[in-house]
Amino acid sequence: MAEEFGWWRWLIQWESPYRADMLAVKEHVYSGKTKYQKVDILITYTYGKCLVLDGKIQSSECDEWIYHEALVHPAMLTHDDPKRVAIIGGGEGATLREVLRHNVEQVVMVDLDEELVNLCRKYLPEWNKGAFDDPRVRLLFMDGRKFLEETDEEFDVIILDLTDPVPGTPSVFLYTKEFYSAVEKRLSDGGLMVTQATSTFYSLDVFATIYNTIASVFPIARGYHAYVPSFEAMWGFVIASRDKDPCVLDEAAFKERLSSIKGELRFYNWEIHRAMFALPPYVLKKIKEARIATDDNPVCLPI
Amino acid sequence: MAEEFGWWRWLIQWESPYRADMLAVKEHVYSGKTKYQKVDILITYTYGKCLVLDGKIQSSECDEWIYHEALVHPAMLTHDDPKRVAIIGGGEGATLREVLRHNVEQVVMVDLDEELVNLCRKYLPEWNKGAFDDPRVRLLFMDGRKFLEETDEEFDVIILDLTDPVPGTPSVFLYTKEFYSAVEKRLSDGGLMVTQATSTFYSLDVFATIYNTIASVFPIARGYHAYVPSFEAMWGFVIASRDKDPCVLDEAAFKERLSSIKGELRFYNWEIHRAMFALPPYVLKKIKEARIATDDNPVCLPI
Amino acid sequence: MAEEFGWWRWLIQWESPYRADMLAVKEHVYSGKTKYQKVDILITYTYGKCLVLDGKIQSSECDEWIYHEALVHPAMLTHDDPKRVAIIGGGEGATLREVLRHNVEQVVMVDLDEELVNLCRKYLPEWNKGAFDDPRVRLLFMDGRKFLEETDEEFDVIILDLTDPVPGTPSVFLYTKEFYSAVEKRLSDGGLMVTQATSTFYSLDVFATIYNTIASVFPIARGYHAYVPSFEAMWGFVIASRDKDPCVLDEAAFKERLSSIKGELRFYNWEIHRAMFALPPYVLKKIKEARIATDDNPVCLPI
Amino acid sequence: MAEEFGWWRWLIQWESPYRADMLAVKEHVYSGKTKYQKVDILITYTYGKCLVLDGKIQSSECDEWIYHEALVHPAMLTHDDPKRVAIIGGGEGATLREVLRHNVEQVVMVDLDEELVNLCRKYLPEWNKGAFDDPRVRLLFMDGRKFLEETDEEFDVIILDLTDPVPGTPSVFLYTKEFYSAVEKRLSDGGLMVTQATSTFYSLDVFATIYNTIASVFPIARGYHAYVPSFEAMWGFVIASRDKDPCVLDEAAFKERLSSIKGELRFYNWEIHRAMFALPPYVLKKIKEARIATDDNPVCLPI
Repeated sequence: MAEEFGWWRWLIQWESPYRADMLAVKEHVYSGKTKYQKVDILITYTYGKCLVLDGKIQSSECDEWIYHEALVHPAMLTHDDPKRVAIIGGGEGATLREVLRHNVEQVVMVDLDEELVNLCRKYLPEWNKGAFDDPRVRLLFMDGRKFLEETDEEFDVIILDLTDPVPGTPSVFLYTKEFYSAVEKRLSDGGLMVTQATSTFYSLDVFATIYNTIASVFPIARGYHAYVPSFEAMWGFVIASRDKDPCVLDEAAFKERLSSIKGELRFYNWEIHRAMFALPPYVLKKIKEARIATDDNPVCLPI
Repeated sequence: MAEEFGWWRWLIQWESPYRADMLAVKEHVYSGKTKYQKVDILITYTYGKCLVLDGKIQSSECDEWIYHEALVHPAMLTHDDPKRVAIIGGGEGATLREVLRHNVEQVVMVDLDEELVNLCRKYLPEWNKGAFDDPRVRLLFMDGRKFLEETDEEFDVIILDLTDPVPGTPSVFLYTKEFYSAVEKRLSDGGLMVTQATSTFYSLDVFATIYNTIASVFPIARGYHAYVPSFEAMWGFVIASRDKDPCVLDEAAFKERLSSIKGELRFYNWEIHRAMFALPPYVLKKIKEARIATDDNPVCLPI
Repeated sequence: MAEEFGWWRWLIQWESPYRADMLAVKEHVYSGKTKYQKVDILITYTYGKCLVLDGKIQSSECDEWIYHEALVHPAMLTHDDPKRVAIIGGGEGATLREVLRHNVEQVVMVDLDEELVNLCRKYLPEWNKGAFDDPRVRLLFMDGRKFLEETDEEFDVIILDLTDPVPGTPSVFLYTKEFYSAVEKRLSDGGLMVTQATSTFYSLDVFATIYNTIASVFPIARGYHAYVPSFEAMWGFVIASRDKDPCVLDEAAFKERLSSIKGELRFYNWEIHRAMFALPPYVLKKIKEARIATDDNPVCLPI
Repeated sequence: MAEEFGWWRWLIQWESPYRADMLAVKEHVYSGKTKYQKVDILITYTYGKCLVLDGKIQSSECDEWIYHEALVHPAMLTHDDPKRVAIIGGGEGATLREVLRHNVEQVVMVDLDEELVNLCRKYLPEWNKGAFDDPRVRLLFMDGRKFLEETDEEFDVIILDLTDPVPGTPSVFLYTKEFYSAVEKRLSDGGLMVTQATSTFYSLDVFATIYNTIASVFPIARGYHAYVPSFEAMWGFVIASRDKDPCVLDEAAFKERLSSIKGELRFYNWEIHRAMFALPPYVLKKIKEARIATDDNPVCLPI
């Protein structure tokens, strides 16, 4: 059978019982199970090397920089001068890598799954690029919510780089009003939080609920989104603060801060910053109708 | 077998031999073949009713308004007062529908495939909403390129709502320098053309080549893109003119023209207009490297 | 996209959540819903025209003669001279067609689903070949079990051409001890019954249970199987009688009766008759372990 | 996502551009490439552990004994007392295992692919069950055709356990008249050869051509077939000899030889032996129409 037809190893990502994406697998690097999740590291023809958790691509070599630049830089640049940063989740180390491109003093990364982080260090060096060895980094393996609820530390930016709120997984309680209140308490003056917030199309209800939940805790909350090909979706984020607004920025000052980021940006710039916050009417309409998620009544993906 | 698992009728859209999207089909409305293409009209669980040509979704009930608002309104609103409009392609009648929301005097729609247009009139009334019966409309069934090359008419806006340049199909010659020169000759002073231009990610080379080809003919050429879920991609467009620039607009005047559009806009507004033209660095970089397509050396999708 | 790659309309037959067969659909003839089931009539590249009920191929143009010859002729030829035949189910009319090739006097066919039978008459003439118009045929639309329980008629051969015992469907009660007792009461002296009995590999437990259930009612019960490609399986049947054994036949007499069948046989002959009853040790072993199905505790397919 | 739905790692076996079997993969044991072929060892939910070469299941834990019993025992038992056996191919070691259950003196196994045999020894101990360490075995890594053409040895049984004649692979020249003549020269008096011969349904032309080619070399040639679930097909074989006929056997003597096979048989017995040689009319008809394969005009699978 010809190379160009009939490939036999496939990753099928089920988005619902009625929709799936089929990706041919070129090489199979690793498959295993940590205490918390099933882990596959696969090289696909379409997206290159992929980290797959419980059957869903978390990030791909081919576009992880879109997701990670979009997650990290808007909050980091809206702050005047972030020095202390917390990352909740972020196993691959790519969020950490992006944070370290800024002139920060301390970053604490709190991930539940030590085995996963070790797999990422071993198999995904293109993602973390040595970030775990940076002396500014403190790595903790524990429940991120517990960490924020119990610590006395304050942070300039808190980044929530989490798996989706899939029913029955611990992530569900990292998208509730109670959790965002705990986050808010740990922000310094001028501080911001940002979270991934699922797709603004396929799970628009979930995005809208996450947005509303955050807006019920913070005076300033802004939704934005970016197209991430390997997620096969426009991907949502929410940034929030007591006092800083990513949509009200001085262009000259922003661009100066932007130019201080080390290395090349492949996705993000001033125009993209502004464009990401432009949500179309059908998204804005849904936000108006959505509810607030609480520990008693959390928000979950439909599957 | 439970309703929620194991659906048996599927549309599998192959994007390459290594990637496909699987969509469960709820109802099968029509399947047939015109002189030019295979036509399926299917109701999918994910996107509702879909028009599928030669195995590719052309538009879906669920998001056709994103594509059609993004194709039509930026060019129509950049023009001060478009009265005469030509649509090349546009079988579903939804591009026509969007054009007719403006205060136009005459619209000529030129589609190669009369059978297809008749199928759309019969099966897709949600798309065309009676547009074909509007007295301002003239409908021609012929080769769009031939029409533009032979007519003496001038148009304020020419909209190219075409199938992709798939190798071996007539569409290939509607993406070349010679064709765009023919388009340019038929624009009135202050006139604009706009074309769909394939995905800015999966076929970025093709998009970049289309952009460069248009930029070799027109003094002003602007690429933009919008996320269209059922295309499973960020979708590209190029707008071009001798004298009008969609990125240099007076906000107040634009918004006034915007408010004169009849009915509700679900995707497009002033913020979205500006956001769509923000192309990320990885797209801009590819545009610099791309070539120009000619009748002798046209641009085609890889499959 | 080339004809030979990338076909977009597929029938996916899920055999379990872990296994499915994908068949490209060349033409879509009919899709609809009767009072009892979902009906698709599709032309597949691999098997030609197919009748699909609730997502499962019931029979295909390309191999329906294997199934129907294997179902009908062993029982009909084991009987010395069958005159009165009952078919329970058999919507397509192909079982009827095969029965009418014998020198019978009366055939009653009892199918629950009148709409389905009408669709088969309209769309599957290759299957029934005018059988429904034969003056020897009486067609009843009612529950087959009720018919057998209430009628006073006796039959020489009763053929159970049923859908699989899928949980929640009425077929489940056509595979129980109580039902087979009702069948037994309606057989004349020297009479035989035969039923389809699902796959002897993928649902071997179910086959073995059906066999044992029948063997608990009839002194003589014989399992056999034949390979039916479009079922992607070796397909099981059980024949039963008070007094006739399909494995103890006079070869010369059998061959004479065989030669009296009208028209050409494509699958069945004397050697195949004997071969079908040779069940491998792994099937025989499972039969020893299986239970008996009753109305209170019926046997169902695992999905 | 529930365990029972939405599994993400799949083996898709393409049988043609229009048909494929999807099998969910439970565990991924090994993936790599030898000098000759791509090798995957996967644990599927449906068939357990599978050896997959170039995307096609060669044998599965769940049914390899059907294929290997059907390949080996008919020829071994038709011979009165086979002492010297040659196996061409047979990488997994399961054909060897079955041969060693007979009272043989010497077995030479000739496989082209040393790396594959080593992988099978390491990963498929359930297949070979120590057979490679039996002192009666001589293992050669070389072209099987070259071996037979150059050796002076004679064999009582020669078993051709080959990959399918896929265009462009070396196997193609192990299904030609010239090759079978070389085989014939190496058989002792009373000796037999047997070969796998692809599906008697999906590639019936190929089976029929292999049969006819063998029948053009040997006075006695008999086709037979057995259902192998993981091949999703009825699988064909051809046995041939100058003087021994597997269809003309003394039942008592056969059964005595059968009882001398060490260990339990799960698929094969006297009834199955006879049943396998019963080919239905549609197969016999195709054999009459088929041609003879030669080195100049070999027979290949359609894909």
